[in-house]
Amino acid sequence: MRDTFKKHLESNLNMLQDSRLLLAISGGLDSVVLAHLCHQLNLKVSLAHCNFNLRAAESDADEDFVLQLADDLDMEVFIESFETENYAKEEGLSIQMAARELRYTWFQELAEQLKFDYILTAHHADDNLETFLINLTRGTGLEGLTGIPEVTGKIVRPLLPFSREALKVYAIDQNIAWQEDSSNASTKYLRNKLRHDIIPILKQMNSQLLQNFQTTISNLQDSQDLIDDSVVRIQKKLTTAEDDQIKLDVLKLKQLSNPKAYLYQLLKDFNFTAWNDVVNLLDAQSGKQVFSSTHRLLKDREFLLLSEIASETDQAPIAIQKSDQEVVVPFGTLRFEHVTAIMDTGNTTIYVDAEKLVFPLILRKWQEGDVFYPLGMKGKKKKLSKYFKDEKLSLIEKEHIWILVSDDEVVWVVGKRADDRFKVTENTTKILKIDLQ
Amino acid sequence: MRDTFKKHLESNLNMLQDSRLLLAISGGLDSVVLAHLCHQLNLKVSLAHCNFNLRAAESDADEDFVLQLADDLDMEVFIESFETENYAKEEGLSIQMAARELRYTWFQELAEQLKFDYILTAHHADDNLETFLINLTRGTGLEGLTGIPEVTGKIVRPLLPFSREALKVYAIDQNIAWQEDSSNASTKYLRNKLRHDIIPILKQMNSQLLQNFQTTISNLQDSQDLIDDSVVRIQKKLTTAEDDQIKLDVLKLKQLSNPKAYLYQLLKDFNFTAWNDVVNLLDAQSGKQVFSSTHRLLKDREFLLLSEIASETDQAPIAIQKSDQEVVVPFGTLRFEHVTAIMDTGNTTIYVDAEKLVFPLILRKWQEGDVFYPLGMKGKKKKLSKYFKDEKLSLIEKEHIWILVSDDEVVWVVGKRADDRFKVTENTTKILKIDLQ
Repeated sequence: MRDTFKKHLESNLNMLQDSRLLLAISGGLDSVVLAHLCHQLNLKVSLAHCNFNLRAAESDADEDFVLQLADDLDMEVFIESFETENYAKEEGLSIQMAARELRYTWFQELAEQLKFDYILTAHHADDNLETFLINLTRGTGLEGLTGIPEVTGKIVRPLLPFSREALKVYAIDQNIAWQEDSSNASTKYLRNKLRHDIIPILKQMNSQLLQNFQTTISNLQDSQDLIDDSVVRIQKKLTTAEDDQIKLDVLKLKQLSNPKAYLYQLLKDFNFTAWNDVVNLLDAQSGKQVFSSTHRLLKDREFLLLSEIASETDQAPIAIQKSDQEVVVPFGTLRFEHVTAIMDTGNTTIYVDAEKLVFPLILRKWQEGDVFYPLGMKGKKKKLSKYFKDEKLSLIEKEHIWILVSDDEVVWVVGKRADDRFKVTENTTKILKIDLQ
Repeated sequence: MRDTFKKHLESNLNMLQDSRLLLAISGGLDSVVLAHLCHQLNLKVSLAHCNFNLRAAESDADEDFVLQLADDLDMEVFIESFETENYAKEEGLSIQMAARELRYTWFQELAEQLKFDYILTAHHADDNLETFLINLTRGTGLEGLTGIPEVTGKIVRPLLPFSREALKVYAIDQNIAWQEDSSNASTKYLRNKLRHDIIPILKQMNSQLLQNFQTTISNLQDSQDLIDDSVVRIQKKLTTAEDDQIKLDVLKLKQLSNPKAYLYQLLKDFNFTAWNDVVNLLDAQSGKQVFSSTHRLLKDREFLLLSEIASETDQAPIAIQKSDQEVVVPFGTLRFEHVTAIMDTGNTTIYVDAEKLVFPLILRKWQEGDVFYPLGMKGKKKKLSKYFKDEKLSLIEKEHIWILVSDDEVVWVVGKRADDRFKVTENTTKILKIDLQ
């Protein structure tokens, strides 16, 4: 085991040789064996152990075990204690997700602050197969079957080609002690079922199971590479990024061999779950939309428009005081300046008669029913909705429109059109320049 | 079950409604239930049963059972008896492969002769999951995980969305009898392990296992579609078909994100197994080659050349008698004609002095050491190998060269160059025209 491990490092993970490594250690078989292997190969390793305080005395015993191990192997060790249950409650996470988040955040912080080059975790081939099978029982796609990568950013998993059995044989052979974990989390339950009831039978069916499985996931990763290529190409062909939104060309999408498959690939990072609804948008009426937790996909004539859902605070009205010179708003910065002459006008700058304004001005999203007197239209009143229609704004563009109002009268449809009532006239004595940056 | 089946047919397999159908029936649960369902929906079904004579009395009992069923359901029935073991021995196949080949050949023949539109088989969701898991234990790629298609050519599998359990519940509920199969073929053994030991536990882990599995394979099929797209595109970009060979541009291949993955996709239909050797060809010296059972891949400067391996009989020398007017050869037909004047010459036609020829002429592959006197080179002798080099023939082109010899003297490097010694001169009295078509 030590020799194969050494060879594996030399041919695939050579960058570990002269790096500062932080090894995530639980005290269980896998990470303890990894610590011993690193020690034997004289790698520069420090240990990091999380005490999640989820198993009372047992958690503390693990901590003591890790301290003793660090002492035995003469390794630096970091221990951090977490109130995992509280954190999970506060963040609305499962205990397991909470522990995961706490663990990785802490490791990354440690690595950052103490200049570790890599974080090592002890995932092995059986973990990979178990994850594959768990994802299979839940329903998945290619992403769920390609396994854990050996390297992701700073995180390296050097035991990935090795089976749990090989680790155990090595530990027993070398008289290495480890802590058994009695925890019973729900995936622990699933993993135990797989570990004890299913994988042994699969190994009876084919003694080369784990090697064959490595081949399988390597083949599937190759497939994923081909898909990534074709998605990049399609993305260039039929999407355009505009301001805060991504525009997908529906006609081009529908000409592809499998529009649904491409749509999934193009949108998979945006947290959608109602994929049937997403696909149905292709043939839906303009105005139909589907939401994910973070994004919205809107059918707008021959396009699908993808945009982030603005958070509630981003939508709230903003009061602007007479003394404000600069106000940061969700879409930029508004600058207010008293000037003596009108210089450069344009969509992002207006000049108004300061004495007609009633402070605080309010900057808010427009609403159905809002009206204004477009500058240059001889004092004719117009509904904002009508104005937007005439300007052929898309639904999403409309939703991004803010208006600046004075005593609930529109001063500026920001970035679009000033109101006639506040314009600078021959009677104006104080000119206020308002500028969007 | 009957209603869901009906709905499934209406929405996905509507073409079955008014077609002539041939149902492959073993007598087991799956195919018997399918026969009953088709009967209840008044589909136009005939039965076809293979007696493979592998289980003595039991095989005959199955045959009797099917005859009785056909009678009960008032369906036409075809029975064919096979000497499966002999056939397997003769063809060097496993019993299972032999049975499979016999079965499908017969079904296709029946369908052809008696004008059936579709052949129905009773594969169901559990078959699909079992195949997935068997492939997984053996090591596979995306192709091995995308399941059996519902329709392939004439073959339709209308039970694919249904679980074995649903079929069994229906059979018991409807008092439908079936034959139990006691056979013990090796995949039967694997399938039984899966069926009894593994899949039930996976179902405990997730009660929606089979539905989720359908989602998974549908997602994987989508992934396969994307890959097929990208392979078609890459094929256009970097392969050219020339005569009997396909030429792959190595430089372009190596610029791709994952050359190995593309190479696999481009060559997967040509029976290669030594994929590492295939990939190593990319960086190998000119002249290196890898063979599959049917094809050869040859590194030739900046190209990989794929060609079919000629069979031994195609390579054997051919004797041509004086009386022959037309001889069929591996690369076309040679025509011999006595003429009085030289008309049109060219690469595929030569004129020779008939009296200088010694019959039988021999048409054979060229060999290292062969020499000739190229026509028009003033009687200078030249090694064929040198001639080919000067002509910049690729290795594969060279191997496809045949020569026509008279008393072991080259008359014609066929399709390339005539020999000076046999040319028509002023002294020639009999001109023989030799023409390759």
